[in-house]
Amino acid sequence: MQHLLSMNEVTHSHLNSIFTRANEIKDGTVDWAAKGTFAANIFLEASTRTKNSFYIAERRLGIDVVDVNGSDSSLTKGESLKDTLKALESIGVQLVVLRQPEQGVLQDLSEGLNLSIINAGDGTGEHPTQSLLDLYTISQEFSSFKDLHVTIAGDIKHSRVARSNAHALKKLGAKVSFAAPVEWQDESLSSEYISMDEAVEVSDVLMLLRVQCERHEEQHVSNKDYLSLYGLTVEREARMKRGSIILHPAPVNRGIEIDDVLVECERSRIFDQMSNGVAVRMAIIQKLLEGDL
Amino acid sequence: MQHLLSMNEVTHSHLNSIFTRANEIKDGTVDWAAKGTFAANIFLEASTRTKNSFYIAERRLGIDVVDVNGSDSSLTKGESLKDTLKALESIGVQLVVLRQPEQGVLQDLSEGLNLSIINAGDGTGEHPTQSLLDLYTISQEFSSFKDLHVTIAGDIKHSRVARSNAHALKKLGAKVSFAAPVEWQDESLSSEYISMDEAVEVSDVLMLLRVQCERHEEQHVSNKDYLSLYGLTVEREARMKRGSIILHPAPVNRGIEIDDVLVECERSRIFDQMSNGVAVRMAIIQKLLEGDL
Amino acid sequence: MQHLLSMNEVTHSHLNSIFTRANEIKDGTVDWAAKGTFAANIFLEASTRTKNSFYIAERRLGIDVVDVNGSDSSLTKGESLKDTLKALESIGVQLVVLRQPEQGVLQDLSEGLNLSIINAGDGTGEHPTQSLLDLYTISQEFSSFKDLHVTIAGDIKHSRVARSNAHALKKLGAKVSFAAPVEWQDESLSSEYISMDEAVEVSDVLMLLRVQCERHEEQHVSNKDYLSLYGLTVEREARMKRGSIILHPAPVNRGIEIDDVLVECERSRIFDQMSNGVAVRMAIIQKLLEGDL
Repeated sequence: MQHLLSMNEVTHSHLNSIFTRANEIKDGTVDWAAKGTFAANIFLEASTRTKNSFYIAERRLGIDVVDVNGSDSSLTKGESLKDTLKALESIGVQLVVLRQPEQGVLQDLSEGLNLSIINAGDGTGEHPTQSLLDLYTISQEFSSFKDLHVTIAGDIKHSRVARSNAHALKKLGAKVSFAAPVEWQDESLSSEYISMDEAVEVSDVLMLLRVQCERHEEQHVSNKDYLSLYGLTVEREARMKRGSIILHPAPVNRGIEIDDVLVECERSRIFDQMSNGVAVRMAIIQKLLEGDL
Repeated sequence: MQHLLSMNEVTHSHLNSIFTRANEIKDGTVDWAAKGTFAANIFLEASTRTKNSFYIAERRLGIDVVDVNGSDSSLTKGESLKDTLKALESIGVQLVVLRQPEQGVLQDLSEGLNLSIINAGDGTGEHPTQSLLDLYTISQEFSSFKDLHVTIAGDIKHSRVARSNAHALKKLGAKVSFAAPVEWQDESLSSEYISMDEAVEVSDVLMLLRVQCERHEEQHVSNKDYLSLYGLTVEREARMKRGSIILHPAPVNRGIEIDDVLVECERSRIFDQMSNGVAVRMAIIQKLLEGDL
Repeated sequence: MQHLLSMNEVTHSHLNSIFTRANEIKDGTVDWAAKGTFAANIFLEASTRTKNSFYIAERRLGIDVVDVNGSDSSLTKGESLKDTLKALESIGVQLVVLRQPEQGVLQDLSEGLNLSIINAGDGTGEHPTQSLLDLYTISQEFSSFKDLHVTIAGDIKHSRVARSNAHALKKLGAKVSFAAPVEWQDESLSSEYISMDEAVEVSDVLMLLRVQCERHEEQHVSNKDYLSLYGLTVEREARMKRGSIILHPAPVNRGIEIDDVLVECERSRIFDQMSNGVAVRMAIIQKLLEGDL
């Protein structure tokens, strides 16, 4: 693999390879740097966490980072993204981390380029490094994915991250359920829909999705009602299985998908996910630059 | 001290410790780097000087810098600043330099975080590294603060920088006066108000404040009149005490608070302040990361 | 030379010195770094290529880069660019790469400063590093400029880059023609105007200019007609001289000044120009910091 565009490309063997390297990075037993390498981080949509996580991963590997954003770049002169990538390649960039708003354009964009692209979010599409850090965080807590019950809760319909996570988890042997308001359900998926009340009682892992307030024009439920109807309340958390954990990709809407006081509760792995994100991204970058994915 | 939020926390012993280190840095007799450390510079309000001064201080210490600004960050997704700080902590950031518009929020913000925060300006509130570089610049010129006459001139009422400088200077034994138009005076302060005509004749240090054109909705005096009534004209500078110096936090409004031709006059320490700012900030960062404040 | 503001200052001996160094850099036979040096890249107008090219050149030399742009800097507080430069000098910046919209201000700006300025575009004025990388790219292909026929095609009237390139090429012994719609011709220039149909048949080097859609308020020809009337079509390219090459400063308006499919054709040196740009800029920065221009 030269690029990381979609979770579809990621095999079980890739996963093992990335997770093993991430473990080594966290243990400090790998000494790998790519001094003299240039990456370009192109974020055409707002992001603090993902952008900064990649930046720190890159810098910890000794990589120099060119920062490209939509407002100050030649993209405002009507230049195509492909030409921007070719220009970056010409001036010596070997790795591009790309967040941009259009789904399904990355395959074409990546063709014929002598650099590696990591998809850091393509609109409502995929965000494979987020999926990989989610899976890695689960792997840190449970000895195996086999028979693990994972419930993904929130806007399933518009989140391909949710769907690729579900797909990957099932391939790894986990049982996957969804919990979602009717209008956010996608009936084409084979997994079962359950209520949040059931989800908290049966799940080993509860993956909350972010309510994308900025993407949905009409909100079906008020933010206040969302928490009590579909979110993780204090009352529901109290009924969660022993040893079960809570994931959330962040940024969290406190009081909407999860009660404010639960964000840092004992079951929450939300800040561990962020911390793991740096190690997982370092592992992915190493593997891509090594040509070993 | 883990954070530097306010001049109130800075003791005489802190001052000595910072100034001694800043001297060593300028002399090149300290070899201290923090390679592998990450800082985040969060500037939610415009600033060239302070931001760049911190950036250079950090890079000269080998620190890698994550740049966060309001427009491109998750802060635009409605995330709280506290959650942004916790996210930065999670991904490995150890130092945050923060300029943000609200006064009085830093104490709460800084609680429960495993990183150091330096206040780089909280609205019309404090800006302790500016105060420290002002004091350092004075200490470079005079053997002692004892009995030094310092006049602070300009918008005393809206400038807590002015007031914390005044407070710190008095603790150090200096005599402090203010010069300000009536509407910018704050009668709750114990220092004496004098005219600019008197100020130039009695002061060893004349600290001009910047007229914050962008903050005041209604201007009481026209810019042209400000200079002749309350500013430092060529005529007034000619009457200044032998050996006295001029400070200004910059950026200068040339022709408003000071005559254009005086910005680089012999008494002016305006560009020395900038240069000293890097050394003082390096000293502060070292001390905070050493846990030695 | 302390600054690089205009091609007028660049002698034949400067050219040789820069090109020789750029060759050494590309061959890897020069080991030159300026660790501990700070540069400021000030781009007050949009640019991906030039800004990133300088950034990579600087980082490859170990230089730390302060990024200044118009929207987040004190320039929005009404500070003059000169004061910004003096502030940067005070905090330790030794090199400034400056793109700003006003022509003819650089000489004044650069006076009395203890740092080196490289003009990275002054409005519709000069852009000497672009000229130098154009000339360098030509020098890579042809043993001598003597009797080389170069045609510059496009908006000659508003492009001082075109005119300084023409001037430099003639000094080097090349024959220079122009190809341009009547409204973009400048009759004060001594070079001959020829049609694109003639240009493709006689030129060794065809330098296409970018149609500056964002600068011209009224467009004289539609974009579609521009290509067939004045642009490089597939049909015209087929009639080009054996061994001749195509240059373009990029970003390219595909289908306006050049047919889409020709951007990466065999004669095209467009992406080589970008790649050469990094080496040429590294050479220029080295020479300026060495005081050897």
